[in-house]
Amino acid sequence: MSVEVVKYLSVGLVMLSTIGAAYAVGKIGAAGLDGMARNPEASGSLLTAMILAIAFAEALAIYALVVAFLILFA
Amino acid sequence: MSVEVVKYLSVGLVMLSTIGAAYAVGKIGAAGLDGMARNPEASGSLLTAMILAIAFAEALAIYALVVAFLILFA
Amino acid sequence: MSVEVVKYLSVGLVMLSTIGAAYAVGKIGAAGLDGMARNPEASGSLLTAMILAIAFAEALAIYALVVAFLILFA
Amino acid sequence: MSVEVVKYLSVGLVMLSTIGAAYAVGKIGAAGLDGMARNPEASGSLLTAMILAIAFAEALAIYALVVAFLILFA
Amino acid sequence: MSVEVVKYLSVGLVMLSTIGAAYAVGKIGAAGLDGMARNPEASGSLLTAMILAIAFAEALAIYALVVAFLILFA
Repeated sequence: MSVEVVKYLSVGLVMLSTIGAAYAVGKIGAAGLDGMARNPEASGSLLTAMILAIAFAEALAIYALVVAFLILFA
Repeated sequence: MSVEVVKYLSVGLVMLSTIGAAYAVGKIGAAGLDGMARNPEASGSLLTAMILAIAFAEALAIYALVVAFLILFA
Repeated sequence: MSVEVVKYLSVGLVMLSTIGAAYAVGKIGAAGLDGMARNPEASGSLLTAMILAIAFAEALAIYALVVAFLILFA
Repeated sequence: MSVEVVKYLSVGLVMLSTIGAAYAVGKIGAAGLDGMARNPEASGSLLTAMILAIAFAEALAIYALVVAFLILFA
Repeated sequence: MSVEVVKYLSVGLVMLSTIGAAYAVGKIGAAGLDGMARNPEASGSLLTAMILAIAFAEALAIYALVVAFLILFA
């Protein structure tokens, strides 16, 4: 395989790693909604904590995105 | 494999990563509906939080879409 | 592999990603029906939220469809 | 395969390992939100412990990122 | 395959092993938070035990990191 060829294949592999980030977002979001339904008075602090936790998960996808862009354009 | 050939294959791999985003949307949507059924007075704030959480999951699919378009057209 | 050949293969890979969207629709639909059965007075708002959540999942399949059409005809 | 070629492939493999970190973030975030909903008075210490645990999980993704950068640029 | 080539491939494989460490961190962190929510008076000793358990899991990832560095630079 030439270098050009393998770059695209590895971008495909790298982006597959965002499946994990999506799993985390789903798990955290579901738990947040579940908590708000069970205990509505805590909605505010739950929403804050949910967004914070999702941000950490999103960061993992951003890492993959950065590596993908580095492979494609660097 | 030639470059042209591998571009299409890697687009296929990249798009597979949206499976994770779909899992997240499903998990969050199910939790939101479950919460609304259990605690209907919290429907409004649950819907807001549900859409917010789904938007974060959807963003992961958009990342994949952006990379796929970059591979196809850049 | 020739370019023509790999186009069809990658369309196959891309469309596999709709498995996730189908999982999401199934999860959300099941939770919606479950909620309506447990709490029939909330049927109206549950139906609205269910259709909204399913629409987000459906969008992920549309992304795959767009990419598949781009590969086949662009 | 040439060295240049295999570097990109192994970066793809290395980044796949962040799926595990994402699983951990999702699991911890969900447990944290669940705990805050069940026991709101403990919100503060739960949030601190959640961020601490997520930081350990995030560290695993950073390890992968460091190795990926070393392979690409060292 | 030449030696240089197989080095990078095996680093990719080695780093995949951190998925297990991440799973452990997630599981331990979730259990720790769950315990703190159910029994807040035990928060302090739970936090200590959680960090200790996570440290052992993290050690497994460090082993992988050490082996990866040894393969790359030794």
